[in-house]
Amino acid sequence: MRGVIMHAPRDVRVEDRENPTIIEPTDAIIRVTASCICGSDLWPYRGTDEVDDTPMGHEYVGIVTQIGDDVREIKVGDFVVGSFFASDNTCEICQAGYQSRCVHATGLDGTQAEYARIPFADGTLVATPGRPDADLIPSLLAASDVLGTGWFAAVAAEAGPGKTVAVVGDGAVGLLGILAANELGAERIIAMSRHADRQALAREFGATDIVEARGDAGVDKIKKLTNGLGAHSVIEAVGTQESMMQAIRATRPGGHVGYVGVSHDVELPGLELFFSGVHLHGGPAPVRRFLPQLIQLIWDRKIDPGKVFDLTLPLEQAADGYKAMDERRATKVLLTV
Amino acid sequence: MRGVIMHAPRDVRVEDRENPTIIEPTDAIIRVTASCICGSDLWPYRGTDEVDDTPMGHEYVGIVTQIGDDVREIKVGDFVVGSFFASDNTCEICQAGYQSRCVHATGLDGTQAEYARIPFADGTLVATPGRPDADLIPSLLAASDVLGTGWFAAVAAEAGPGKTVAVVGDGAVGLLGILAANELGAERIIAMSRHADRQALAREFGATDIVEARGDAGVDKIKKLTNGLGAHSVIEAVGTQESMMQAIRATRPGGHVGYVGVSHDVELPGLELFFSGVHLHGGPAPVRRFLPQLIQLIWDRKIDPGKVFDLTLPLEQAADGYKAMDERRATKVLLTV
Repeated sequence: MRGVIMHAPRDVRVEDRENPTIIEPTDAIIRVTASCICGSDLWPYRGTDEVDDTPMGHEYVGIVTQIGDDVREIKVGDFVVGSFFASDNTCEICQAGYQSRCVHATGLDGTQAEYARIPFADGTLVATPGRPDADLIPSLLAASDVLGTGWFAAVAAEAGPGKTVAVVGDGAVGLLGILAANELGAERIIAMSRHADRQALAREFGATDIVEARGDAGVDKIKKLTNGLGAHSVIEAVGTQESMMQAIRATRPGGHVGYVGVSHDVELPGLELFFSGVHLHGGPAPVRRFLPQLIQLIWDRKIDPGKVFDLTLPLEQAADGYKAMDERRATKVLLTV
Repeated sequence: MRGVIMHAPRDVRVEDRENPTIIEPTDAIIRVTASCICGSDLWPYRGTDEVDDTPMGHEYVGIVTQIGDDVREIKVGDFVVGSFFASDNTCEICQAGYQSRCVHATGLDGTQAEYARIPFADGTLVATPGRPDADLIPSLLAASDVLGTGWFAAVAAEAGPGKTVAVVGDGAVGLLGILAANELGAERIIAMSRHADRQALAREFGATDIVEARGDAGVDKIKKLTNGLGAHSVIEAVGTQESMMQAIRATRPGGHVGYVGVSHDVELPGLELFFSGVHLHGGPAPVRRFLPQLIQLIWDRKIDPGKVFDLTLPLEQAADGYKAMDERRATKVLLTV
């Protein structure tokens, strides 16, 4: 089969790979319908994270072609959406809603490919109610990571009725954090963005205010919009020192920061955090917790998170997709397989 | 009047100070009945925090002798307990339960003294149902800070039914965090302590297990006691890099760390925090939020937090009290005035 390999920073190729096979009796094999490139794939692309002939991709929707002997819920022929982490969904941590930290949690072997092996199929995959219309594919694919992650950030930030929510980061996750905060009933949603196209999508997803300033100047703007107090809830979707401090400082005492940007070179100063009085929660999103609800909202056409994809390419042109995201010509690239 | 002044590290003296007077119409003056020495007073005593002829003390119970023109709830003659931070208790932050970060929050001018001025008397003080029996004074005094702080830590750590709670730090706050977790219904409470006398009090307050190991060895012990997962809730009551990392690492993914040790030279590594998946909340405790409930529990003799005082001295011997706490000969020193 064909699949994406990153050989080194900025060296992405589509090559022949071995077809995946059932290894554990809880595995399933899927024929990937669509995959995409994640903001986190840019960390190795830019040389920040190590990479060495790595099969890429962890977001996917597809059709089940084969199941192991112990798979009970998922059937051959199902159209499925899965989380970017495989989880058994039965352990104590999964049952508490933290499937991304399942005691058996495991990553995936590259879903930017024609086929993929999904461990713990029953615990990782959720079947859609039927075969989806083609126009629903992007939204279902978004549920696999960026929507689930933005949703988790909004839940972690306790977005809800009566709350003012600020969102640091206007990538796909930040934008879908806005959509999530809106669905969760937030009263006011402040998007921090300086890109006209992303501001437009932010407003479409429910942002009521836009702040273009960054860092402490951005914090000042948020405070001015909130009686000097700061937002009740802040979503952090970048993962840098500046963005984390911007999020913490933009939050009122007793407020909640939901952070989902994978922290790179971040050190949180203890004393400032202490006196901030905020709640801090985040990490790799337990997407599986939210998948049934998110799939239903998409199926019923109540949300349209697929709008974050602003470039669609065939799998064979994956390298162009990485380049477009790296150069910020695209927010999020969908790969048709 | 007489009051405690710290002139420099390890230089504590009881001296004549000006009697406090009403400055703002929302002030009250109290005749201090008892005060105490806080673990946080040891930071300047040991030279970690700066100090320069500073009036000491922020914990107190006493009798109101004078009120400003705008004081409505508190009356002359009331026996009162107050928080270590003055708060108006009416602003949006107070109403959300974060009185220690009130928009008008202000510290106190040294309550290790015969009299003290309490700003925002109505928002800061809570009157007891009547004049307390002498044996209740230590417990009511504890409510002013260490009990309120331990209680906040247990609430921030979401201690409750079905939960395993671990407590890092066996000072007065950690011990009262155990008492709080027990009152909140925790199923299992693991005290981390290597001092026999504190272990005994920990058990009296509700600890079910004792772990003597510290740092990563202590974390391993907690994991062994919790199926390898870590505690649901961890109370951090020290404020060092080691204790914070011990708390975060001892918590299961999705669990809660409630931290109230004033962070000194603490830097939290972003990537480890991210992948820990814990909730982190803490800071200066909003003691005022809990005072009515805590006073009632003490009044009804349902809890006896005053047991943390293991040395009682007259105000004039305050310097001996500081020395005893510094040398860990005393957990918590009560000063009678």
